[in-house]
Amino acid sequence: MATVRSLTGEEVSAEALAVFDDIRATRNTDYINNFWRALAHDPALLKATWERLKTVMAPGALDPLTKEMLYVAVSVANNCEYCVHSHTAAARAKGMTDQMQAELLAVIAMASQTNALATALQVPVDDRFKA
Amino acid sequence: MATVRSLTGEEVSAEALAVFDDIRATRNTDYINNFWRALAHDPALLKATWERLKTVMAPGALDPLTKEMLYVAVSVANNCEYCVHSHTAAARAKGMTDQMQAELLAVIAMASQTNALATALQVPVDDRFKA
Amino acid sequence: MATVRSLTGEEVSAEALAVFDDIRATRNTDYINNFWRALAHDPALLKATWERLKTVMAPGALDPLTKEMLYVAVSVANNCEYCVHSHTAAARAKGMTDQMQAELLAVIAMASQTNALATALQVPVDDRFKA
Amino acid sequence: MATVRSLTGEEVSAEALAVFDDIRATRNTDYINNFWRALAHDPALLKATWERLKTVMAPGALDPLTKEMLYVAVSVANNCEYCVHSHTAAARAKGMTDQMQAELLAVIAMASQTNALATALQVPVDDRFKA
Amino acid sequence: MATVRSLTGEEVSAEALAVFDDIRATRNTDYINNFWRALAHDPALLKATWERLKTVMAPGALDPLTKEMLYVAVSVANNCEYCVHSHTAAARAKGMTDQMQAELLAVIAMASQTNALATALQVPVDDRFKA
Amino acid sequence: MATVRSLTGEEVSAEALAVFDDIRATRNTDYINNFWRALAHDPALLKATWERLKTVMAPGALDPLTKEMLYVAVSVANNCEYCVHSHTAAARAKGMTDQMQAELLAVIAMASQTNALATALQVPVDDRFKA
Repeated sequence: MATVRSLTGEEVSAEALAVFDDIRATRNTDYINNFWRALAHDPALLKATWERLKTVMAPGALDPLTKEMLYVAVSVANNCEYCVHSHTAAARAKGMTDQMQAELLAVIAMASQTNALATALQVPVDDRFKA
Repeated sequence: MATVRSLTGEEVSAEALAVFDDIRATRNTDYINNFWRALAHDPALLKATWERLKTVMAPGALDPLTKEMLYVAVSVANNCEYCVHSHTAAARAKGMTDQMQAELLAVIAMASQTNALATALQVPVDDRFKA
Repeated sequence: MATVRSLTGEEVSAEALAVFDDIRATRNTDYINNFWRALAHDPALLKATWERLKTVMAPGALDPLTKEMLYVAVSVANNCEYCVHSHTAAARAKGMTDQMQAELLAVIAMASQTNALATALQVPVDDRFKA
Repeated sequence: MATVRSLTGEEVSAEALAVFDDIRATRNTDYINNFWRALAHDPALLKATWERLKTVMAPGALDPLTKEMLYVAVSVANNCEYCVHSHTAAARAKGMTDQMQAELLAVIAMASQTNALATALQVPVDDRFKA
Repeated sequence: MATVRSLTGEEVSAEALAVFDDIRATRNTDYINNFWRALAHDPALLKATWERLKTVMAPGALDPLTKEMLYVAVSVANNCEYCVHSHTAAARAKGMTDQMQAELLAVIAMASQTNALATALQVPVDDRFKA
Repeated sequence: MATVRSLTGEEVSAEALAVFDDIRATRNTDYINNFWRALAHDPALLKATWERLKTVMAPGALDPLTKEMLYVAVSVANNCEYCVHSHTAAARAKGMTDQMQAELLAVIAMASQTNALATALQVPVDDRFKA
């Protein structure tokens, strides 16, 4: 599977390797997961994606675990198999417990069903919900 | 708009009114928003949906604001106009600040783009991400 | 709204008018709804779409009302506002009762939530479900 | 694959086993498919999901086969691989013939294309379609 | 995988074989890919789908490669694994270079993120964008 | 509508105004459309989004009109009303003719239906399509 083949070590460009080094340093791991390896075909896209991700997922008004669970929620709704796996694993690594994961799934399931109902009913937006 | 017409006060069934009362008591407000009013055409669906929502959104291992932001994230990815409006307003009411909303949007945007990239590249899931 | 402007009577081509005539005859009505009027900008697309629709929605192993409810289900899941409205109205015209509509919505809501759960859990397909 | 590991027989809780028993009794089979096994990590979610499904899919104004085909239609539009497999198999078991399946697919394909066209054209909803 | 089993050579109908012959002649290849083989269960759907595809993808105001890249873009957004693979391969065969593929992916990723942002913000459409 | 209110001229930050200036200079227009005005609530997100967009949409191996039509295709598949309007208008401004728009729509409709069919059939990917 994959629409681009895996690059061998020799084929990865210097620009891509520099991004890999920053991923390793930022995440404190030697492992570069397949997503970044696939993006290495286009070092400019790899670099832009990684740098934006690093900024967006950094601690802020929302903590990293909350951000990771939001990432899982979007990935499930968008039905991205790779992303559901990778971000569930990341949320686990950031401290998501069994109970938190259970509640995350329950909220996703709940939202999915009321999303469908509101769309089926074409409910008009209440004035008080408009900014 | 709407695929069902608005029920007048006389048309809402006793079973639906009982649900409305519980919504009012639980949320400490007199206001019943349009989603519940549209569902009142089917009191059994109204009741099942509300009771499940009340359970799922109650405080647990995740706090109510986190759950509400997850709800927004799913609603955006599913593109439910009504739900994006209503749950953004609910998150605001539960304490979402401007900065938190900004970070919520940034995570949703980030996930949407890497979801698309992983799908376009058909990246195989790393073994270490499998449970 | 709309990304193409409405054609005036004089602007509709003879090829498009012939399709309009067939829609009127097939549906036994004078009314041409906005979807077909918008497609009239491209008579070839209008004709291909209408002729395929006429074939697909004709009575067969599935009756026209069942087909129309399936159309609503897909339109809700794809979140097409226009289509949810038009096909709900069409299902009504073909005999969908309040109770049938209520059950249709309940199935759509149920499927939406288990779809999300199966995706979140990345459940492997049971061998017995493979053809 | 899967974001939760398979539970061994000893790990499934008594509450989950009771749900499994009800699934077996209701469906008149010993087989518990992977979806329910994965949900067993959260017995409360398992129980809520199963009980709602049992109610929603019971015979009513719509017969069980029609409901199952609606489930397939939503699952295809939501692109849930597991669900497309499991509900196609369920529809087969409930009597969906080759010809019915062929018409189901033709309607799904038709709806998908007119959904896309209506969205691309941003067709305004006809007044007569509003409830 | 697959919700219909593979037909053996003897089982493919004469009507389906005639479509296969036209695919071979049009594409100048002996190879019939799995999509068409799966559709052969319903020769009428196979024929309608192929003939429409042949018309739509023929050179016109847009060249075949541009059409194929548009097909990839839709397939990624709709998250169709089979289609992403087959149309990426087709685009490659029609001359899509590494650099073009990189730009295609960058546009898809960009659109996916601004789509999500516009939906999250529920931005009203500017009057000047309405036809 | 909108989940953030419109900022008055006094409320837009200096950082956001600098982005507006760059949009005006790049596009050679005084008009700032609603999307950018809504993003101005978060100048950092506004700036990151605009700068990435400017890079991605610049002429490259793909010309700006092709990129804009790809943007429309993704926006339709993601069902973003605002984006369908704004990018259709942008494609028009960049030279998309009636005939090109008609072919764009035909490809989107075609892809949407074969995406649905491949998903419904769960067609396995041909080995030759794997990179």
